Amino acid sequence: MNSKLKILKKRLYELRYVSSASSLLHWDSNVYIPKNGVSSRAITNSLIDEICHKKLLKLDDGHILTELVQDLPKLSLEDAAIVREAFRNFDRSRKFPSSFIKRLSQLSTKAHHVWKEARDKKDFSIYSDILEEMVSMQKEAVDLLGYEDHPYNALIDDYEPGMTVSKLDNMFNGLKEFLVPFIRKVTSKDISWEYVIDGKFPISKQIKLNEDVLSVLGYDFSSGRLDVSTHPFTIDIAPYDVRITTRYSKKDLLYALYSSIHEGGHGIYGQGIPVEYFGVGIGHGASLGIHESQSRMYENLLGRSMSFINLLHKYILKYFPDFNKSPEDLYKIVNHVSLGYIRTESDEVTYNLHIILRYEIEKDLICGNINVKNLPEVWNAKMKEYLGVQVPSDDLGVLQDVHWSSGNFGYFPTYSIGNIYSAQIYNTMLKDIPELKGNISSDTLKSMKSWLYENIHKYGRIYPAEDLITRVTGEGMNPMYFNKYIEDKYTSLYELN
Amino acid sequence: MNSKLKILKKRLYELRYVSSASSLLHWDSNVYIPKNGVSSRAITNSLIDEICHKKLLKLDDGHILTELVQDLPKLSLEDAAIVREAFRNFDRSRKFPSSFIKRLSQLSTKAHHVWKEARDKKDFSIYSDILEEMVSMQKEAVDLLGYEDHPYNALIDDYEPGMTVSKLDNMFNGLKEFLVPFIRKVTSKDISWEYVIDGKFPISKQIKLNEDVLSVLGYDFSSGRLDVSTHPFTIDIAPYDVRITTRYSKKDLLYALYSSIHEGGHGIYGQGIPVEYFGVGIGHGASLGIHESQSRMYENLLGRSMSFINLLHKYILKYFPDFNKSPEDLYKIVNHVSLGYIRTESDEVTYNLHIILRYEIEKDLICGNINVKNLPEVWNAKMKEYLGVQVPSDDLGVLQDVHWSSGNFGYFPTYSIGNIYSAQIYNTMLKDIPELKGNISSDTLKSMKSWLYENIHKYGRIYPAEDLITRVTGEGMNPMYFNKYIEDKYTSLYELN
Repeated sequence: MNSKLKILKKRLYELRYVSSASSLLHWDSNVYIPKNGVSSRAITNSLIDEICHKKLLKLDDGHILTELVQDLPKLSLEDAAIVREAFRNFDRSRKFPSSFIKRLSQLSTKAHHVWKEARDKKDFSIYSDILEEMVSMQKEAVDLLGYEDHPYNALIDDYEPGMTVSKLDNMFNGLKEFLVPFIRKVTSKDISWEYVIDGKFPISKQIKLNEDVLSVLGYDFSSGRLDVSTHPFTIDIAPYDVRITTRYSKKDLLYALYSSIHEGGHGIYGQGIPVEYFGVGIGHGASLGIHESQSRMYENLLGRSMSFINLLHKYILKYFPDFNKSPEDLYKIVNHVSLGYIRTESDEVTYNLHIILRYEIEKDLICGNINVKNLPEVWNAKMKEYLGVQVPSDDLGVLQDVHWSSGNFGYFPTYSIGNIYSAQIYNTMLKDIPELKGNISSDTLKSMKSWLYENIHKYGRIYPAEDLITRVTGEGMNPMYFNKYIEDKYTSLYELN
Repeated sequence: MNSKLKILKKRLYELRYVSSASSLLHWDSNVYIPKNGVSSRAITNSLIDEICHKKLLKLDDGHILTELVQDLPKLSLEDAAIVREAFRNFDRSRKFPSSFIKRLSQLSTKAHHVWKEARDKKDFSIYSDILEEMVSMQKEAVDLLGYEDHPYNALIDDYEPGMTVSKLDNMFNGLKEFLVPFIRKVTSKDISWEYVIDGKFPISKQIKLNEDVLSVLGYDFSSGRLDVSTHPFTIDIAPYDVRITTRYSKKDLLYALYSSIHEGGHGIYGQGIPVEYFGVGIGHGASLGIHESQSRMYENLLGRSMSFINLLHKYILKYFPDFNKSPEDLYKIVNHVSLGYIRTESDEVTYNLHIILRYEIEKDLICGNINVKNLPEVWNAKMKEYLGVQVPSDDLGVLQDVHWSSGNFGYFPTYSIGNIYSAQIYNTMLKDIPELKGNISSDTLKSMKSWLYENIHKYGRIYPAEDLITRVTGEGMNPMYFNKYIEDKYTSLYELN
């Protein structure tokens, strides 16, 4: 058993450190690649991916991995996690013939272009046929992977291991029942403020401000970087090399700040995972949902709280002494609720309804309950039902997200799982660090980072997500904490009583 | 033959595009890697290098490469170059057992640290033993590679294919005979100016200036980038992705400018090579010497000419309107000759003597004519003889260069080959573009780039360096043009008549 483990670890080590090159290529492609270099980059990407894919399939050479899986109960906690994760990845990979992977990759590239064109022309019909092909490839994937209970389970599992439709249905129903009526209450309230920041904030100063704020949150710049990309992201390139990105608006300094704080949450998680886990395949977050819980917690639970905004305001004044909003103004601005069409621009109250809509549609597509051609109608009807808005054109509706064109079906729910987990974890953490509700100092933020490290970060992928959340909060995924958080905060802010 | 060629090309393609990842890793390591990420990067580097090394050795699987070499005379010019270069790389690689490569790589890493320590402490004795080990590994390499006439030929050939000690001896003697007495004349002349630029030049403005100057020279930013690194370099990552770096001094704007122009010369070459050559292993410069000829030409022959400085001065004024030197002052400043100890800070008149010294020492080390322990004495005596200076301490003498600690014996001569070639090519080009001696406009620089493209860049590695120089200039390597250029320019500048 020990010698098999040793061989497995050596193979995992090579796989992970080679795929570190792939991570750097990805980072560079989104941050610094010259315009004309994009197409030759695709060749290098696919060659490195192929090398990694072969190494993944070779994990079981001599059947060591499949045999180790039989020994799982005899292994230490850490070794069991290593074997479990290695097998999960290997098992998913071996189920896809290379012809399928190639077809999917070609379809994604094509679909991505068609999607962009359709979105630019605000015309879903351009995209309909290729999306139908994509949906049918997703169904093929479901058949290749196999599933229990519900075909969509096969797809979710890739992003959120262990998550199922029945658990998600429960969770989303819990959210919907509370949120739909609550949003009506909030948005029907006459309020006197809007989200408006319209100043002059030179980027070079904003960069310093963002770096300062990230540092006080606990993001470590000697093991990371902050760069600019169209869509902000966080990437674990290697141990001590976890990079984040943001983007700036000269007029609105909050635009970059809240993206940076969000990615900072991911980054602090990535930097906190023990480096020795990296080379054995458990140096990631426990799941996408858990990862998102960390970013959302920093961005929303902490970041949009009055306590934190008092501190943030001081940092803003340091670089922009003429900034003319008080902390109280700022608090209102960053917590303004509005009925919008676009998921990525939505506030923390309405956000999950955007996800519920996508989740319901994805499930129905995979089951064949709705026809791709009818998607705009389905989409717009749900937007009307949940948010009460009339989508004016497809680019502001069904065409807004990139995910489906890339074949990422099953990904959307992890955003809401992240929101649910974030409130659940924060609720527990507040009992240990009540200062988070009072005057937040840099020490408070240090305590928060330590708490997250001790309870979540240091375990990397040792525990499955649901085990971890139960260990930390004493119960499984429960939307009640999120609902309660939203209800308390916005009842007070919008003076709903 | 055709099917063998097809297989070879496919193998070369994979090799080159995978090693493109290695190039990006290298770039990132020198430009953006976070401080703590360095040690895990080394692991990824060595794994990707290993993959590439295996792919290189596999080029001959089924003996297709060794058989194609027999068919060389029947192949087209391009295919013959592809086979020739593939075989050269393969043949060098197969001669080194993997144990040797590993030992050399470990020794380099260690020697690099020891060298740094010795340099910091200005004490060669710390470095002596490990350098002796390195020299003896270089002798081993010579034995593994085999050679004709002179053992040092085996080492030069890696950097400058086809170059030999007898050709270099001729060339360096030609230089030495002219330069040693000429430098005495120049430096004994009383002059009224010095190299002094001491102003305030904010980096953000300097970046724009450098980008502007590089653009007018012909470097294409949609297929490249300009970043900052401690030691400026150029790297061909992939087709349409040729990046350069520079470094800035807030006080001296020339510090960055001339580095940028030098690297720009490399970059324009890299960007000019037909992209279809990249994947078949002939998408590099013809040799390091030819590559250096392009950078030196832009930096010195063009860049330090009165004609170009008139244009450069306008660009400087655009960003720094208070710049208080006239073009004539600037010309004197950038052509100031001084007797210094440090190669990288030396001017174009004294530079080659720094190389001659290293060349002579390397040859003697490889032949066992001198003892590593005595290197400081040998070095300092030669400095006295050639430049008439007394080296005050080892950090300013024998310890100044990184090359030996990395095992790069045989590299130094390519710098002088570059200088010689640059003057020889420029002399030919001037006949076609006499405007280079008159008023230089952006059109003149376009003509220069086109001329270099037509005569040099578009051939990539099709022609061996010496064939190429003969095609372009009508004769082989000839130091006379360099001597003549230096004599004319500095006789006038220093009023030696």
